[in-house]
Amino acid sequence: MTEFALHPTLAADSYLLGQVGAVQVRMHRSAQFPWFLLVPEDPATELHELPPALRAELQALADRVGRFVLKHWRCDKLNIAAIGNVVPQLHLHVIGRRQDDALWPRVVWGNLQEGPLRAEADAAAVAAALRRAQVLR
Amino acid sequence: MTEFALHPTLAADSYLLGQVGAVQVRMHRSAQFPWFLLVPEDPATELHELPPALRAELQALADRVGRFVLKHWRCDKLNIAAIGNVVPQLHLHVIGRRQDDALWPRVVWGNLQEGPLRAEADAAAVAAALRRAQVLR
Repeated sequence: MTEFALHPTLAADSYLLGQVGAVQVRMHRSAQFPWFLLVPEDPATELHELPPALRAELQALADRVGRFVLKHWRCDKLNIAAIGNVVPQLHLHVIGRRQDDALWPRVVWGNLQEGPLRAEADAAAVAAALRRAQVLR
Repeated sequence: MTEFALHPTLAADSYLLGQVGAVQVRMHRSAQFPWFLLVPEDPATELHELPPALRAELQALADRVGRFVLKHWRCDKLNIAAIGNVVPQLHLHVIGRRQDDALWPRVVWGNLQEGPLRAEADAAAVAAALRRAQVLR
């Protein structure tokens, strides 16, 4: 069995907040959005290729993260997507969007402007809040 | 129980190919991509709000549509997303992307240029192929 190696772009763009089963919970470094990346440690590149148990784990986790995002940042809408045109390693975006955010109603992909980055301490505080809310467990 | 009313933008942008349980299978009118819209007939606006049976039906259908798209149009990647910033009525995009398509590697949302539209007869032929492949059943 080959060891899982995170794609360098995902590593560069996001902080690891924790791990649930075989899924890495990561947060994008942009501070403009609550933007999570869920990365199953699996060679699949499409959602339907995941082993069913891992797929179910990913979905349950995405639901918990999504509910947390809506409440914690008082978001109006979730944007949930598996795209992978640039980084083929499977990663599910869970992004909280607000009608007053910098890009509304446009999608973030391809439209992200330079802007403030999230400090590592801030990502750690989000991880702690996720643990308290039992999103990470 | 209120009757389901399809959002007028979804109605204008896509053809109805068929229905699986309580999910409408629709095809975007752009002929530039194999672009499906799966619309659960439910008031939910987020995936996690769907009743579990309907959610499972939507996911199984999305998987069948996605596998069909990859094979039928020889696509390199699926783009699967629930966004809803513009049209809040829940709809799941299942889009086949190729490295030689007009927008690769950019996402289609917000980047779609004017281009050829799919004829209704072509959408009907896709619906027939989906039935033969038991994607619609």
